[in-house]
Amino acid sequence: MANATLDVVGIGNAVLDVIAHADEAFLRKHRLVKGTMRLVDAKEAEVLYGEMGPGVEISGGSVANTMAGVASLGGRAGFIGKVRDDGPGQVFRHDITSAGVTYRMPAASSGPATARCLILVTPDAQRTMNTFLGACVELGPEDLDRELIEGASVTYLEGYLFDPPRAKAALRQAAAMAHAAGRKVSLSLSDPFCVERHRADFRDLVKHHVDILFANEIEICSLYETKDFDAAAKAVRGDCEIAVLTRSAAGSLVVTPGEHVAIAPQMATRVVDTTGAGDLYASGFLFGLTRGRPLADCGRLGSLCAAEIITHVGARPEANLRDLAKAAGLA
Amino acid sequence: MANATLDVVGIGNAVLDVIAHADEAFLRKHRLVKGTMRLVDAKEAEVLYGEMGPGVEISGGSVANTMAGVASLGGRAGFIGKVRDDGPGQVFRHDITSAGVTYRMPAASSGPATARCLILVTPDAQRTMNTFLGACVELGPEDLDRELIEGASVTYLEGYLFDPPRAKAALRQAAAMAHAAGRKVSLSLSDPFCVERHRADFRDLVKHHVDILFANEIEICSLYETKDFDAAAKAVRGDCEIAVLTRSAAGSLVVTPGEHVAIAPQMATRVVDTTGAGDLYASGFLFGLTRGRPLADCGRLGSLCAAEIITHVGARPEANLRDLAKAAGLA
Repeated sequence: MANATLDVVGIGNAVLDVIAHADEAFLRKHRLVKGTMRLVDAKEAEVLYGEMGPGVEISGGSVANTMAGVASLGGRAGFIGKVRDDGPGQVFRHDITSAGVTYRMPAASSGPATARCLILVTPDAQRTMNTFLGACVELGPEDLDRELIEGASVTYLEGYLFDPPRAKAALRQAAAMAHAAGRKVSLSLSDPFCVERHRADFRDLVKHHVDILFANEIEICSLYETKDFDAAAKAVRGDCEIAVLTRSAAGSLVVTPGEHVAIAPQMATRVVDTTGAGDLYASGFLFGLTRGRPLADCGRLGSLCAAEIITHVGARPEANLRDLAKAAGLA
Repeated sequence: MANATLDVVGIGNAVLDVIAHADEAFLRKHRLVKGTMRLVDAKEAEVLYGEMGPGVEISGGSVANTMAGVASLGGRAGFIGKVRDDGPGQVFRHDITSAGVTYRMPAASSGPATARCLILVTPDAQRTMNTFLGACVELGPEDLDRELIEGASVTYLEGYLFDPPRAKAALRQAAAMAHAAGRKVSLSLSDPFCVERHRADFRDLVKHHVDILFANEIEICSLYETKDFDAAAKAVRGDCEIAVLTRSAAGSLVVTPGEHVAIAPQMATRVVDTTGAGDLYASGFLFGLTRGRPLADCGRLGSLCAAEIITHVGARPEANLRDLAKAAGLA
């Protein structure tokens, strides 16, 4: 296996987030399920935006957030995802590039606008997401940057890629490309409803093509159609090399064929907005893994990054994560 | 004097902020003076944006921030300022409208893009601003909404209006319109360099047309060309009915012909970004004043609002200010 030129390359939806505070009544009125992501079309997005409160616009996208976190930790990260050549697309490109992530895919010059995610943050700091996929629906196998994928220690994919029609093929091809180059493939299950929508595909993918899986408690239980977390953890153990199962305030569990490593949660100084907690956990874990750290340290790095992101609005780190990791004796 | 239909109507630049963290070296490299605002053209803005870090986009504009604060306190606020009919203009309109501020000026269908302010926040939480005025340069006397101005207890103006060429005339006319309707006129000096640029005009305005003046220590000293704060406070006492002089961590001083009221600062739970501290102080003060509160309470309300805004990135309140005021026994 040739030396890696990147630690992680991520493939995912390129999204600009619009984050606003909302109360429980607002969620009820719009029949939104707290803590989940749903897809909306351009019209629904417009109506919801019109009714939601004042927003903060900040680059998002699950995998893109993870890559920004890897870069903030001092890792070498790349991103593949599609924007349109519009204002939000320029903002997305500026933000990910200036965060130190390699992003060289050209913007689409026609087709739908850059994706937006309308995120409602309730007083309990939970986020509820409404995604207009826009230009992301155009991502296809022809967009894969072979050089980035073959050069990265890990290719990291999001389950959300199963939503746009052509990205699923791109995801499968990227996994094959990475494995052919002797690299690892990692997947995040993204969202419980996303698992519901694509369970059979995900099961096949996890069993045959994924080396490192990220899932939260609800997602992993949904994947294996059980209500018992321990049963789900047992099931995934046979399916992939490393499964990283996050449980919010209960910490996380790293499951491998040989061991279970429990990671204590890192307490945040305050909890304002949980958007991006899972994404940034993955940043820390993948960074640690590509640097050859023990699994327990990988998990601690993940918890550290998640604890930073929930102290403020938005899913891109405000603090320098490398400094935080150093202060915690993890870098 | 007829009953007011609004507590405050603000006239100012309609701006979308792009806020990024930066270090001292970045300010030095770009020869920026920390804590101040400078005007940039479209080209300079593009270059600076290309070099600055990942940003958060959030509606701004000094007076617009103040009006959002008044509305969050439960006051009736209106805003007059010009955007273009572009994406950022739509974001600005959405944010101020959904904050509960009356904003009914149509967007310009031609001319420069909606204004942007590139804000660099250094590790000491200070902000340094670079404003591309864009569509704001088109604001003129014909844009004044007579009904809003005549119906508001206070017409609040920003010194920044002296920068775009035609807004100065609009500002003078708005002051005359408000006074003719028996209303009060308030002005914020905005920025030390802004005072430098327009000192003679400001002196005349303060002496003859302003009832309630807001200035920080540096601005008021610059206005009266003195290095002695007490001398400046004495000078302004003869010039207008109420002068509100803010001194950051040293609190604030309210000066009237008859009394000096010193207000202790309100300590923030944490200080992340001082953008908007002065704007939100004005929100609290003007809200208290229009509700007939004693000057000391007006100052305390100002300090309370300023203390909220500096705990997070951006100059629009994240918390409900009315709830905070209630909790502090001020509403």
